[in-house]
Amino acid sequence: MKKMASKAPAPVIRRLSNYHHLLLGLKHRQVQSISSTTLAEMLEYKPVQVRKDLQLTGLVGKPRTGFQVAEVEESIRRFLGWSLDSQAVLFGAGNLGSALLNHPWREEYGLRFIAAFESSEARANILINNIPVFASSYFPTFAKEHQVDIGVIAVPAEAAQDVADVLVANGIRGIWNFSPTHVKTPLGATVEDALFARSLAILTRRLVESRNDVEHPEP
Amino acid sequence: MKKMASKAPAPVIRRLSNYHHLLLGLKHRQVQSISSTTLAEMLEYKPVQVRKDLQLTGLVGKPRTGFQVAEVEESIRRFLGWSLDSQAVLFGAGNLGSALLNHPWREEYGLRFIAAFESSEARANILINNIPVFASSYFPTFAKEHQVDIGVIAVPAEAAQDVADVLVANGIRGIWNFSPTHVKTPLGATVEDALFARSLAILTRRLVESRNDVEHPEP
Repeated sequence: MKKMASKAPAPVIRRLSNYHHLLLGLKHRQVQSISSTTLAEMLEYKPVQVRKDLQLTGLVGKPRTGFQVAEVEESIRRFLGWSLDSQAVLFGAGNLGSALLNHPWREEYGLRFIAAFESSEARANILINNIPVFASSYFPTFAKEHQVDIGVIAVPAEAAQDVADVLVANGIRGIWNFSPTHVKTPLGATVEDALFARSLAILTRRLVESRNDVEHPEP
Repeated sequence: MKKMASKAPAPVIRRLSNYHHLLLGLKHRQVQSISSTTLAEMLEYKPVQVRKDLQLTGLVGKPRTGFQVAEVEESIRRFLGWSLDSQAVLFGAGNLGSALLNHPWREEYGLRFIAAFESSEARANILINNIPVFASSYFPTFAKEHQVDIGVIAVPAEAAQDVADVLVANGIRGIWNFSPTHVKTPLGATVEDALFARSLAILTRRLVESRNDVEHPEP
């Protein structure tokens, strides 16, 4: 258990989630095994880095046959906490919030929304994807009666800090922030911004490169 | 121009988008300058890697004063193609699609939605955030008459491949996929999956670590 508790560096975790996404695609296409070299090529990492990252999750590949796709996927999922059942609540049941409540998180990421909270009376007291949407004022009571691992912020930017404060005040230590702003929390809480822009960066940079290729072709 | 056209490795682009996000936060908090060492610490990278990454965008820090936050932010933005005006269309004007159309992409990422397309007649022929939503069947005509750099997929998983095929058939080379599935495209098109799970990984792993800390405290 000592090994499981050691703090993994953030860059390793980000790479592991990239491997995981790729492996899900391979699983989907019924690919059975893959070498660390191929994984490295697909993501533009160095093979030695891929092997080191996978070793951290407890995997050792065989020199000739590589890794079993299903086994690696499972090992990364366990390492990332996606094989546990995490209970989440969501604040803000607008378009983005509704989309998040409807997303299939549970199967692949072990994330289960148990309730949503909404400051607008008109959008409270309904069900979205079978998840109850309550008035925000009910949250402190709810938090006392339920295990809440993660609070998801999907309110407009100007309301995000207030929601973060409420989450922290009610003992929620994991915050996943989808609002396009930064929130501050005291030590002990973890905030992760769900950055759409991270994948946009690859796309727009590749477009810059291809435009320049066309305008200034290599000799 | 030769330098701008060279292909940046994907891991460098991902790191640059992480620096950029952090710098936006610093700018917001009126922080004027930052050292590569501090940037490295905040993201758990090695300082030498941060310096190398920033150099690729054309920046050189001064040993004592570090970098000007605004200057670095601008330099990364230019490198990632976010200072250009990119024109995008979106397929699927449901909850997620509506949230994306309402998101403030333009100011920080240079991304401008010029139209959305929807297979459901009931959701077509409306405006969302002043962006026209057309019936999907109109897209081939629209694509001939407008410059479309990026096609965003926000339809349900089962419809995503069809939309990708339509985008490619109409000459769109950049695809940003928000549907929870994989789409295949021919060579020459770039597909990026907008992976919400990438930031979830950090959050859930930190929760695993803190749970184990509590259950198995260090001696």
